[in-house]
Amino acid sequence: MKPINQLRIQDEFVGFYLLKELNLRQTSGTPPKDYFDIVLSDATGQISAKYWDVTIQDKETFFPMQLVKIQGTVQSYRDQPQVKISRIRRATDDDGVSITDYVKAAPLRPVDLLHTIKLAIKSIAHEEIRMIVTYCADKVEDKLMHYPAAKSYHHAYFAGLAYHIVRMLEIGDFICKQRPFLNPDLIKAGIILHDIAKPEEMIAQMGIVTDYSNQGKLIGHIALASGWIVEAAIHHGISLDSELVLGLQHLVLSHHNLGEWGSPVQPQTAEAVALHYIDMMDAKLQMVEDALDTTAPSEPWTPMIRGLENKALYRLKIEEESVRSGNEKETIAPPSG
Amino acid sequence: MKPINQLRIQDEFVGFYLLKELNLRQTSGTPPKDYFDIVLSDATGQISAKYWDVTIQDKETFFPMQLVKIQGTVQSYRDQPQVKISRIRRATDDDGVSITDYVKAAPLRPVDLLHTIKLAIKSIAHEEIRMIVTYCADKVEDKLMHYPAAKSYHHAYFAGLAYHIVRMLEIGDFICKQRPFLNPDLIKAGIILHDIAKPEEMIAQMGIVTDYSNQGKLIGHIALASGWIVEAAIHHGISLDSELVLGLQHLVLSHHNLGEWGSPVQPQTAEAVALHYIDMMDAKLQMVEDALDTTAPSEPWTPMIRGLENKALYRLKIEEESVRSGNEKETIAPPSG
Amino acid sequence: MKPINQLRIQDEFVGFYLLKELNLRQTSGTPPKDYFDIVLSDATGQISAKYWDVTIQDKETFFPMQLVKIQGTVQSYRDQPQVKISRIRRATDDDGVSITDYVKAAPLRPVDLLHTIKLAIKSIAHEEIRMIVTYCADKVEDKLMHYPAAKSYHHAYFAGLAYHIVRMLEIGDFICKQRPFLNPDLIKAGIILHDIAKPEEMIAQMGIVTDYSNQGKLIGHIALASGWIVEAAIHHGISLDSELVLGLQHLVLSHHNLGEWGSPVQPQTAEAVALHYIDMMDAKLQMVEDALDTTAPSEPWTPMIRGLENKALYRLKIEEESVRSGNEKETIAPPSG
Amino acid sequence: MKPINQLRIQDEFVGFYLLKELNLRQTSGTPPKDYFDIVLSDATGQISAKYWDVTIQDKETFFPMQLVKIQGTVQSYRDQPQVKISRIRRATDDDGVSITDYVKAAPLRPVDLLHTIKLAIKSIAHEEIRMIVTYCADKVEDKLMHYPAAKSYHHAYFAGLAYHIVRMLEIGDFICKQRPFLNPDLIKAGIILHDIAKPEEMIAQMGIVTDYSNQGKLIGHIALASGWIVEAAIHHGISLDSELVLGLQHLVLSHHNLGEWGSPVQPQTAEAVALHYIDMMDAKLQMVEDALDTTAPSEPWTPMIRGLENKALYRLKIEEESVRSGNEKETIAPPSG
Amino acid sequence: MKPINQLRIQDEFVGFYLLKELNLRQTSGTPPKDYFDIVLSDATGQISAKYWDVTIQDKETFFPMQLVKIQGTVQSYRDQPQVKISRIRRATDDDGVSITDYVKAAPLRPVDLLHTIKLAIKSIAHEEIRMIVTYCADKVEDKLMHYPAAKSYHHAYFAGLAYHIVRMLEIGDFICKQRPFLNPDLIKAGIILHDIAKPEEMIAQMGIVTDYSNQGKLIGHIALASGWIVEAAIHHGISLDSELVLGLQHLVLSHHNLGEWGSPVQPQTAEAVALHYIDMMDAKLQMVEDALDTTAPSEPWTPMIRGLENKALYRLKIEEESVRSGNEKETIAPPSG
Amino acid sequence: MKPINQLRIQDEFVGFYLLKELNLRQTSGTPPKDYFDIVLSDATGQISAKYWDVTIQDKETFFPMQLVKIQGTVQSYRDQPQVKISRIRRATDDDGVSITDYVKAAPLRPVDLLHTIKLAIKSIAHEEIRMIVTYCADKVEDKLMHYPAAKSYHHAYFAGLAYHIVRMLEIGDFICKQRPFLNPDLIKAGIILHDIAKPEEMIAQMGIVTDYSNQGKLIGHIALASGWIVEAAIHHGISLDSELVLGLQHLVLSHHNLGEWGSPVQPQTAEAVALHYIDMMDAKLQMVEDALDTTAPSEPWTPMIRGLENKALYRLKIEEESVRSGNEKETIAPPSG
Repeated sequence: MKPINQLRIQDEFVGFYLLKELNLRQTSGTPPKDYFDIVLSDATGQISAKYWDVTIQDKETFFPMQLVKIQGTVQSYRDQPQVKISRIRRATDDDGVSITDYVKAAPLRPVDLLHTIKLAIKSIAHEEIRMIVTYCADKVEDKLMHYPAAKSYHHAYFAGLAYHIVRMLEIGDFICKQRPFLNPDLIKAGIILHDIAKPEEMIAQMGIVTDYSNQGKLIGHIALASGWIVEAAIHHGISLDSELVLGLQHLVLSHHNLGEWGSPVQPQTAEAVALHYIDMMDAKLQMVEDALDTTAPSEPWTPMIRGLENKALYRLKIEEESVRSGNEKETIAPPSG
Repeated sequence: MKPINQLRIQDEFVGFYLLKELNLRQTSGTPPKDYFDIVLSDATGQISAKYWDVTIQDKETFFPMQLVKIQGTVQSYRDQPQVKISRIRRATDDDGVSITDYVKAAPLRPVDLLHTIKLAIKSIAHEEIRMIVTYCADKVEDKLMHYPAAKSYHHAYFAGLAYHIVRMLEIGDFICKQRPFLNPDLIKAGIILHDIAKPEEMIAQMGIVTDYSNQGKLIGHIALASGWIVEAAIHHGISLDSELVLGLQHLVLSHHNLGEWGSPVQPQTAEAVALHYIDMMDAKLQMVEDALDTTAPSEPWTPMIRGLENKALYRLKIEEESVRSGNEKETIAPPSG
Repeated sequence: MKPINQLRIQDEFVGFYLLKELNLRQTSGTPPKDYFDIVLSDATGQISAKYWDVTIQDKETFFPMQLVKIQGTVQSYRDQPQVKISRIRRATDDDGVSITDYVKAAPLRPVDLLHTIKLAIKSIAHEEIRMIVTYCADKVEDKLMHYPAAKSYHHAYFAGLAYHIVRMLEIGDFICKQRPFLNPDLIKAGIILHDIAKPEEMIAQMGIVTDYSNQGKLIGHIALASGWIVEAAIHHGISLDSELVLGLQHLVLSHHNLGEWGSPVQPQTAEAVALHYIDMMDAKLQMVEDALDTTAPSEPWTPMIRGLENKALYRLKIEEESVRSGNEKETIAPPSG
Repeated sequence: MKPINQLRIQDEFVGFYLLKELNLRQTSGTPPKDYFDIVLSDATGQISAKYWDVTIQDKETFFPMQLVKIQGTVQSYRDQPQVKISRIRRATDDDGVSITDYVKAAPLRPVDLLHTIKLAIKSIAHEEIRMIVTYCADKVEDKLMHYPAAKSYHHAYFAGLAYHIVRMLEIGDFICKQRPFLNPDLIKAGIILHDIAKPEEMIAQMGIVTDYSNQGKLIGHIALASGWIVEAAIHHGISLDSELVLGLQHLVLSHHNLGEWGSPVQPQTAEAVALHYIDMMDAKLQMVEDALDTTAPSEPWTPMIRGLENKALYRLKIEEESVRSGNEKETIAPPSG
Repeated sequence: MKPINQLRIQDEFVGFYLLKELNLRQTSGTPPKDYFDIVLSDATGQISAKYWDVTIQDKETFFPMQLVKIQGTVQSYRDQPQVKISRIRRATDDDGVSITDYVKAAPLRPVDLLHTIKLAIKSIAHEEIRMIVTYCADKVEDKLMHYPAAKSYHHAYFAGLAYHIVRMLEIGDFICKQRPFLNPDLIKAGIILHDIAKPEEMIAQMGIVTDYSNQGKLIGHIALASGWIVEAAIHHGISLDSELVLGLQHLVLSHHNLGEWGSPVQPQTAEAVALHYIDMMDAKLQMVEDALDTTAPSEPWTPMIRGLENKALYRLKIEEESVRSGNEKETIAPPSG
Repeated sequence: MKPINQLRIQDEFVGFYLLKELNLRQTSGTPPKDYFDIVLSDATGQISAKYWDVTIQDKETFFPMQLVKIQGTVQSYRDQPQVKISRIRRATDDDGVSITDYVKAAPLRPVDLLHTIKLAIKSIAHEEIRMIVTYCADKVEDKLMHYPAAKSYHHAYFAGLAYHIVRMLEIGDFICKQRPFLNPDLIKAGIILHDIAKPEEMIAQMGIVTDYSNQGKLIGHIALASGWIVEAAIHHGISLDSELVLGLQHLVLSHHNLGEWGSPVQPQTAEAVALHYIDMMDAKLQMVEDALDTTAPSEPWTPMIRGLENKALYRLKIEEESVRSGNEKETIAPPSG
């Protein structure tokens, strides 16, 4: 079964794919006929597809985010490959395929990511900090198994949020060793809490954000997470005026650094400054890595990336070249005589 | 007893004033002597003053924000009036003077302002909204009797915050009648809650802000008030996911309108849009009124006002002039012939 | 006859509608045929339509902004309703329909709006101010009967400008009572004059702006109105250097508050500050009201609104919910023991 | 008689100078004594000065902007030269000195500048344009003899405005020849009118702006000049809706290019674009020339210049150096062998 | 043979044109057929075209930027003219047509432009400056014969860069005469060097930029040219620390004036300030001239121009009108009596 | 010998200190007397000092940046401690003190920092990259022993630049292991080259920047370093068009990320993105660490830090508090009953 990024024009193929998008349309003929306008996807990419001559039964059978078995041909439409589907049926339990194999996902298993996050929480020495972090993480434990970190900005895939947290924990661990004045408990807590309300802000299925929630639009994940810390403190009888509640709320509230990026206060503790740059370091380099991964190796330039000042990335070809020997025309000598 | 804004150079006077600022300094002579560098104030203004030859006992007697009885002379120093204090003593209970008479204050009595605010709360029809507003207002009831609304931006005086709320309630009442699609309960709640955590954000005495609190700097009054709504809802068993908690948090979080002005989300309900403009209307016009009030009537221009695009205000003299009769030189006629 | 916002797919209907847009197009067939691409509108909304097989006579009969009688069927095209017109004719006098019934209009009759504006002018106590305001308002009296206040930003409908003025006069009246230091004559004059040159800036028909005039693009309504005040003063022999001409020009020139919003000077009189916020209060809340009105009540979110920081508005559902009783899972208790 | 920029510490001197600033102060001794804190100036620069032991008669004799005869010594105060005045008297007619010799002035005589401007007006071929320009220029003819072009930004000296206009006319003349599609009448008119209301905006004496007028603050020179064009057109019976009035108002209104720089509309005619850049070219290069002129030739860097992105200017020393012969250490050769 | 800007719907024509764009597409029929989607251009403009029934041989014959002979008919498609090509063949040497006649080009011949630039270089008096300028100009001499100055911003046509340099040299010559403190050698050098690396930054054919080069994207023409000056100095044994190398690098690095416009340093020499405004004056007025030239004379407004604050330009009609005689209704008289 | 940060008012002391600043002033008495206005410093901080009755010989003996032996008394002046110097002499070789002990310095020895940097260069696998980095580093090897990384922004002390490079190399090493797609040679090269021209941009003595050089102001360290790469490539006969020269120049040119921060191009390779965030991470956390170190441990807040959004930093006191047990008043319970 061919992965989508290997389908070429004129290929005929059979295989299981995800109905990432599915819309019912009508042809412009007389009388107009129903057809499905489809986006098929698997873990390697996506491709547009058409299924003509849709029946009434088809309309009640197929929906977005289902796994289906397809028989089709790859055609060319406006210079782009497009699948003409000749046969389609829903996947069944007997097919032995799992939807998680068909979505772009973090490179580590969710269960392992969650395990790492839990170990990090357990390693927080300060009891009250650990209790608050645990309370908040428990609220979204299920969603951490699959939520992305953002709609499209970065880590926009299955378990992307958990993966973002885990990589940040690695950076946090390094930076606490390099700069011992940082409090490792606060760094760990800040990393785990900073985006913890994202699953409440977004509505996602299989790592794909379809919309923001009302809470997400009207409160936002930053104020939501700050409220969860209040909740957790009340639940555990920890004073809301204590330095630790103050410090944790500050970490969450300030982690976007500037008001125009959504933070009502700016970083004013050592750990809050560190948290912002740990977050930036991981998010930006993940954008870079993902852009390079999803661009064909033969392409020197990736598409433009909104989170990187809307610039494309160039693959330098350092190794292949021989730049010194006998490249006479570039050698510049002072004039003789 | 002369109010400060009527003291003129060479006046000799006796009276009660507030020690708004008091600093111990040394003269540059040999040996240096201690003296007090003082700012005296009353409800009409302030003036700088010196008290020479400070004794050890004086140092233990006089502190900022005390009421004192002064005998002094107004001299001129660098073209500015300055009081040379010849005698000074602390005011006693027998003097029958009250500190509240010596600070700039809202034009209505705090007790009346608070009464108006409580009536407004009582008039909120929706029970849960009323319960949450009551819970939050109760937290700062004492401070509402005297706190200013800001350090210097607007309503920066005794009970300025309560006065700001009361005037906004008047505007809110009008606007709800003019535009019946607005929910009066939410408008009232928004007005009372929007700055309710200001007394927690600032440290103030007699209406004068001396600093921001740690909570104020690291969390800010907007996220603090949002957290109080969470607290109140938990206390009263109101679901945190309910539309009313969502709506109230949104009102508070969005009332500064833009991220760069401190709001992590922008107004996205009818009442949130209204609240922002009710707040602006009252704050800006109060700046105007206060600037005109504290500028001598003979001055056509006030000082520059930071909150009004850093512009000064001009007093138009519309009534005094006669602009039409016989003002020949301004009459412009088409050329004859 | 069905209003447009009640037409549903597969409806067959007959009725009078406005040809808001009408373009002649050709089909892609061989040979291509002419057809009309149409937008029908009435006071409740608009819908796209097609009229196939256009004759030479049709081309000379139908033009935009005409009232027509239509017989048609509602079909679905790209998931959107679209009318297929089977018969069409121009409305005649005998039909007893008026174009003003088919455009979105202010909720009050133009004649009543104009009457209110004239009463407000008459109530200006200061003779010269009243003369100048009258002179300027007379210039556009006819257009005040139907001009919108803006192309799309706010009050973009029949008599929208007059409606905007009238609602602002209500706010101005309230605020002058609340803050007696404001000069009511200047507030009224500022409200009436601030957008008085808008009809010269825009080209509009039936409340729909089709373009900006050359004067509008090269001078703008702010400098135009300032010039009208000069004209009026010359006409009435009022000194151009008088405080009242200065004050009126300043109100008009500064009412957009900032240079980047089109004001060459910033508000520097009490009334100029008030005018800007009265304008904002009315314009923003009208955007809110119009967005909610034109969004189906079943939709929780309106479309995005450019004038409100490009945000959509959410309809809170406060009344319907029961948020306290027995909502056990949300109740948070301190840990027992 | 020594010019100010040649006075050195320990010089004793006698001469005529301008009292650019004069303030009465008191010493800090007991009893305090009156003294004058003075800024002396002439066409070459300025220097601070003190006159001790001021008499009652002195206070009634000396005022700012007078010419005086001084006998004094140059001392050093805080590393800066400062004049100690031993004798002072007002200049009389018999002294044969003229205040115009003691202020920084444009390098051409005002009468010649005005003559050039009048010739330019006379050369405008289009009668109505010429009439309007004449009308506006006549309003400020007297002030053109001495007004600066700005308070400090550029051309801030005696007759600076007329000089700015004359140099711009030279540039305008060149650019109309280089690009014949530009209308020379409009270019000349735009140059003469663009800052024509500056003398109404500012209050200046001897080329030194002491303040902005009320008209200047509340209307600004841009809207003022636009109003003068309206006046002129009415006076001469030229239609306010004509293209030429539109074109002239647009030139004036748009010449600051952007809203945040004070222009309510942006340049939208060929001549308006040209006018903005002619203005910039002349204003910026004059700032450069003046900064270099008033900085001692031995200084490689001028002070920072606000109008040039707040940067200082460097004097390159191109001619003096010998940069090639035998400068072995800088010669970079490819590695041998 | 008709120029493109004179082709009208229903014209049948034969002629030579440039294949500015050519894309192979498929019809939506069954089976789909190949056709060419084409943009034809000549020196007067461009038009879209279709060539149906493309053969295999056609696909190997026709490519973008070729000259072809066309027989076609002008049809109307979506209200726009579109050519239906009936016959097409490549132009041959015997046809006597030259591609340079078919592209928009500077109004002077490249060979003359280059000659003028070389004369300017020769006239640089300072030997080392002349050597460096010569070295850099030689690097792109061939490309100066045809490269545009920008992709679309300004001078975006055949030899546009050379034309931009030549016109700037004219302005530079004038301004050096008007302000003798400017060093003419540096002005000439700055003008020639400021955009000298543009041909390395962009990939262009026949004056049409198709893309930016890797060097252009990753280094940019400003840092590239600064590096060329380093190269030239090394080549000629001129000290890299000399004032002249410093001055030349500064001219190039600062000529965009602000960091956000691409200059890592701001102008800080007299000549650098002058260079920026000479560049602006020429670029902006060329945008104006080109926009007016390519807009039909009957159109009062040009399209919007990105480089001119995204504004369109208006053609004033000053000459045609008679604005004074008997235009009674506009004459404003003071009230009589 | 007491370190400066332990001097208290009324201390009498003898010791060696650095004359960080020294200015000759005159007293205001008659006749005025010369005195030295001094700032003394050592590695722990600085303090102001006065030395009265300066002799002619003193003026020729003492200069800034000298080590001196002082006998003095700490007095109080305007509430600040100030040293009155009674005896002063220059330190001699026999005193056995080294200036490097008296300046704030990086926590590692310069010789060790340089050794680490050299090892990093040696570890670059790609020969040409290593050659270019070596060439550039050799240019400033001496200065790397003591130059700061900036005037005041961050690492503003002795060998601060080398320390900045070494800590960044640690981060770079970590991040290359965490994200193997990054090229370690380019990361190392980018880290060493990014600020390599800073010593040419600034004039510093003992880690204290006194000014920027002409090169620094007119070219800037970013374009300077880019030019050095050109030089190095020419020197080693490496093609200027090669991918590696392109990649290295791009790293240097883009490392400030945005045009307004001084980068003429934005990061567009994976390593350039990484370099910017490695730089930010180190610079910002060093600002944090230095601010906390130089603020007395008893102070909860540091001064404001310009590089951290102009915010102060707060020291959270997490460990000391007991926040849960019996803090009854903060425990919030749902209402009973």
